[in-house]
Amino acid sequence: MGAAGWKDAAAWRDAAEALDASDPLAAWRDEFAIVDPDLVYLDGNSLGMLPRRTIDRLDSVVRGEWGRDLISSWEAGWIEMPGLVGDRLAPLIGAGAGEVIVHDSTTINLFQLIHAGLAMRPGRSVIAIDPDEFPTDRYVVAGIAATTNGVVRPDVDDLTDVAVVVRSVVDYRTGRRLDVTGETARATAAGAVTIWDLSHAAGVVPVDLRAAGAQLAVGCTYKYLNGGPGSPAWSFVARDLHAQLEQPIWGWFAQTEQFRMGPVFTPRADIGRLLLGTPSILALTAAGEGIALSADAGIDALWAKAEALTSFALEVGLDLGLVSPTPRAPDQRGGHIAICHPDARSLVPALARQKVVTDFREPDVVRIGCSPLTTRFADVVTAFERLSAVIS
Amino acid sequence: MGAAGWKDAAAWRDAAEALDASDPLAAWRDEFAIVDPDLVYLDGNSLGMLPRRTIDRLDSVVRGEWGRDLISSWEAGWIEMPGLVGDRLAPLIGAGAGEVIVHDSTTINLFQLIHAGLAMRPGRSVIAIDPDEFPTDRYVVAGIAATTNGVVRPDVDDLTDVAVVVRSVVDYRTGRRLDVTGETARATAAGAVTIWDLSHAAGVVPVDLRAAGAQLAVGCTYKYLNGGPGSPAWSFVARDLHAQLEQPIWGWFAQTEQFRMGPVFTPRADIGRLLLGTPSILALTAAGEGIALSADAGIDALWAKAEALTSFALEVGLDLGLVSPTPRAPDQRGGHIAICHPDARSLVPALARQKVVTDFREPDVVRIGCSPLTTRFADVVTAFERLSAVIS
Repeated sequence: MGAAGWKDAAAWRDAAEALDASDPLAAWRDEFAIVDPDLVYLDGNSLGMLPRRTIDRLDSVVRGEWGRDLISSWEAGWIEMPGLVGDRLAPLIGAGAGEVIVHDSTTINLFQLIHAGLAMRPGRSVIAIDPDEFPTDRYVVAGIAATTNGVVRPDVDDLTDVAVVVRSVVDYRTGRRLDVTGETARATAAGAVTIWDLSHAAGVVPVDLRAAGAQLAVGCTYKYLNGGPGSPAWSFVARDLHAQLEQPIWGWFAQTEQFRMGPVFTPRADIGRLLLGTPSILALTAAGEGIALSADAGIDALWAKAEALTSFALEVGLDLGLVSPTPRAPDQRGGHIAICHPDARSLVPALARQKVVTDFREPDVVRIGCSPLTTRFADVVTAFERLSAVIS
Repeated sequence: MGAAGWKDAAAWRDAAEALDASDPLAAWRDEFAIVDPDLVYLDGNSLGMLPRRTIDRLDSVVRGEWGRDLISSWEAGWIEMPGLVGDRLAPLIGAGAGEVIVHDSTTINLFQLIHAGLAMRPGRSVIAIDPDEFPTDRYVVAGIAATTNGVVRPDVDDLTDVAVVVRSVVDYRTGRRLDVTGETARATAAGAVTIWDLSHAAGVVPVDLRAAGAQLAVGCTYKYLNGGPGSPAWSFVARDLHAQLEQPIWGWFAQTEQFRMGPVFTPRADIGRLLLGTPSILALTAAGEGIALSADAGIDALWAKAEALTSFALEVGLDLGLVSPTPRAPDQRGGHIAICHPDARSLVPALARQKVVTDFREPDVVRIGCSPLTTRFADVVTAFERLSAVIS
C-alpha cells in the first residue's frame, strides 16, 4: 500500500537528468508560458499548458480582427476557421484534409455522431458502451436511448445487433489504449458503427483513423492539444460518409449558402454539415494555436517522448512499491499513468500543496499525465519523491 | 427609390451634434477600443464592438488563470461561470438570479428548450414559427419536427393545438418588436409554450421576462451585449420549471456531483441542468465583460438612447425619401432600423468602402444598427449622407 522508498534515489535522479539532456523535444517547453518554474505540472492530460504563441495570436485576433476589423473579419477568415483548424489537426489523427471539423464540445459532437450512426443502421437500436466509459459519453448515450426508444448495452464485447458502439481510444482512468484497427474491424464485422472518442489520445498517441477504417470519431482539444480551458471539440467523418450524414440539430452554420437564409434547410455536402450555431472565434483561435504546435512537433516525436515518459514513470513508481493498473506494453497505453492507492483522494491535494499537480479519479486513482511538450523526466522523479514523502 | 437629398442637410448635422452633446451615455463609447475614429460602425446589432475591459480581463484569464494557475482555476471559479455570467445578464431581461445560464449557442440552446417545451405539452406535437423568422430558429424547428414526428406550422396567429411557438422579440430584418406580455398571454391561453428569442433584443430594448409570464427564452451575447465573435448564448428558464425540465442532450456539466462521475445521469435541480460539455472559458470571459458593461449602463438608459437614435435615423432617412419597414412607434421596434432599396445588395459594400459599416439582408434590406453604447447621432447623419451619395 505505502511507498517502500527507492533502493537508490540518486540513481533515478541521475537517470532523469540524462534522459532530459538527450530529449529531442526538450526545447519545446520554451514554447509555453511557464510562470512558476518550480511547479511540477502533471495534469496536461486534463488541461494543457498555455502556448506562448496563443497569447500573441489571441491578442492579434482580439485587438485587430475584432477590435479594428469588426464584422468584416467573418468574411476575411473567421467563417472558415472550424474547417481550417480541423485541417491542422488532421495529420495528428490520420485524417485527410476536409475530414475534421472543430466546433462545440465533445458532448454535443458525440450526440450528433451517435444519431448519425443510428441513421446509418436503420434496423437496429442498440448502443453499446462500456460501463467504465467516460461519464459524458455514458450520459449522452443514455439520453439518446431514452429519447429514441433505443437500448443501452453496457458491454462492448458482444456486438450482436448493435447499431453504434462508443469507445474511448485511451481510458481516462487506467490509461489503457485499445487497438483501434482491430476493434473497428470487429465492430464492422458485427454490423456496428464505431464512434471513437480520442479525447485522451489526440496529440499524444499515434492513431491512424483512415488506416484503421474508422468512420466517425470525436475528441477534445484542451488536453494534450493545449487548446485552453473548454476549447472546442472536433469531429472526424470519413469522406465517403459526408454527403449522407444525418443528425438532428439543424443550425444555420451547416446551411448551403448560409447568408441566403433560404426557407428550407439544405445542409452542406461536406463536413461543414455538422456545424450548428455561430462558433466562438476566441475559443477556435486558442485551439488552433495549440493544435498547430502539436502538429509542428509531429505525432511520432510526441509519442516517442510520451512513451519514454510513461515507461519511466511506471518504473519509478513500481520501484517505490506503488500499484498501477496501467498496461506495461507501451502500445497498450496512452500519455498518462494511474497509481491506485486507498488514500488517493487526500494524496492529490497534499501533493498539490507540495507544488506537484496531478488529479484524482474515483475511486482510488492518482493520475499522472506525461504531456510530451511540457513534462520533463525530472518532473516525474520529483513527483514520486514528494508522493512517497506524502504517503509516509 | 432613390434618395431625394435633404431639404436642409446642415440642420440634420446640427441636430445630431446637439443630441450627442446632451447624450448621457456619450462617455460610454470611451469604454470601447475604437481603433479607427473615422469608422462609422452601424453593425453593432450583428457584432458588437470590443470593450476595453475585455482586453484586460482576457489577458488576466489567459496569463494568470490558465497560464499560471492552470487546472486549479476550474475549482477557483471557472466551473461557476455559466451561472455567474447569467446572473449578470438577468437584470437586463427581467430575470431573477439563478434563472439565466450562459453556454453554447443559440442554435443548441433553442434545440434544448424546444424539446423541453414539447415535453411540457405531452399531448401535442405542433411547433409554430413564422416563415420570416431568423433562419437558425426555423432550421432547428424543422429538424426537431423531422426527428420527432412533429408538425411545423408556419403561422403564429393560429395557435390551436400548438405545443411550442418560437418567436423573436425583435425581427432581424424589419426591427419590428413584439408585445412580449400580450403574445405570451395569448399563447398561454391557447395552451402553447412560448420560446422567446431575444437575440436582437437583449441589451437594447427593455424586456421583463418575469413580468411577462415568460417560461423559456434564449438569446445571443455577441450583438448588443458586445460579447465578441461567436460568444456563447444564454437560456432563461422560469424558476418553477427548473426541476422538471427535460431535454435530450445529457452532458456531464449538468450532472449532480459532476466529479463523482456516477453511473446514472441525475441532472441538477437548478438551471445548471441545461449545461452540456465543458464550456469555453475564454468565450465566457469575453461574454461576461460585455454583459457587465451593459448591466452597468442599465437597460433603461440603453433603451432611451437606442430609442432616440432609431427615431432620429428614421427621420433622417425618411427625409431623404428612403423607404423603411421599421415601425414608427418606438415601443414596436428594437435597436436597428431597416431601409429597403432595390440596390441594397450593392449599396452595403459601397458604403463599407466609404467607411460606413451596415449590413445587407435578403432580399433588399440595408440594416442600420444603433448600438446605444457606441453609436453617435453624428454617425447616423454621416451614414445617410454617404448612403445618399452612393445611391446618386
